[in-house]
Amino acid sequence: MNEIEIRRSIRRYKDIQVNEDIQQELIKSALLAPSGDNTQPWHFIIVDDKELKSKIAKVSHNQKWMKKAPLYIVCVADIRVRIKTDEAIDLDESTGLFELKQIIRDTSIAIEHLVLEATSQGLGTCWIAWYKQNEIRPVLEIPNDKYVVGVITVGYADESPKQRPRKRMEEVIHKNKW
Amino acid sequence: MNEIEIRRSIRRYKDIQVNEDIQQELIKSALLAPSGDNTQPWHFIIVDDKELKSKIAKVSHNQKWMKKAPLYIVCVADIRVRIKTDEAIDLDESTGLFELKQIIRDTSIAIEHLVLEATSQGLGTCWIAWYKQNEIRPVLEIPNDKYVVGVITVGYADESPKQRPRKRMEEVIHKNKW
Repeated sequence: MNEIEIRRSIRRYKDIQVNEDIQQELIKSALLAPSGDNTQPWHFIIVDDKELKSKIAKVSHNQKWMKKAPLYIVCVADIRVRIKTDEAIDLDESTGLFELKQIIRDTSIAIEHLVLEATSQGLGTCWIAWYKQNEIRPVLEIPNDKYVVGVITVGYADESPKQRPRKRMEEVIHKNKW
Repeated sequence: MNEIEIRRSIRRYKDIQVNEDIQQELIKSALLAPSGDNTQPWHFIIVDDKELKSKIAKVSHNQKWMKKAPLYIVCVADIRVRIKTDEAIDLDESTGLFELKQIIRDTSIAIEHLVLEATSQGLGTCWIAWYKQNEIRPVLEIPNDKYVVGVITVGYADESPKQRPRKRMEEVIHKNKW
């Protein structure tokens, strides 16, 4: 697939906004992802506010390049689709709940739909997940029972990086046993 | 993207094998996925042995339809790309390690590349993750420090299911805060 082949992680963006119709196309493609028991644990926060973007970049190890991306899509997994309780749930990096693994899996699938759709629309993206839950959530008022799976920067690429080195097939393929 | 639009979870397959060139194309597309620090934690076990497929179906809550899929790709995440130690690591559904969340995320991205590439090649697939680590790993002699993120059944579809209901955009989109 061409989108899979040409996708790169883009860290330099042109000063051009991403229009709302395209934003909606990206989210629509994410919504079509498969999920366990069709639970669809995903939420997407569109962030174009300059100050909020700056705060998100700051809690993401202060990656300055991020600030120039015109749009972030903050991708959040909701464990309440799987755990039905009125009790408080606090999620973080060390949580051992199986359901957290399930919603991270399903939300990651949806996010990659969005990333490939963005590629198809001529946009560049970069997956960011270098923050602490307890630092990024307050920036966007995300409750503690949600888990931020990734922040995707979106915009028109102002660079053409080469593909990063990949493992060889023989290193990762096995036949009928490990 | 057409592949995102037409992908369905397929549970009935024609009695036609998937040739090795196509199998390689699927794995190649997975290898091109992005991963944190380019760690590429994924491994893929191609399973076409009838007895092994039957055992995998059995530990997957005995889903009988699975046996008719000509090919399984068992997708495994390796935590050793992130945790450098000689000590034993035992992973299961309740493990709280942050690194396990990271490799589940990255391997899920790679698996969905494979699934969309299969769609593009005219193949049907289904994500399965309804097993216990301690039951599925012994079937394929997978060590306890690996985590089976999903089993993908692959073959030529013998059904045309409708798209399952999806959440509406308004339910999952937020603007500049939760």
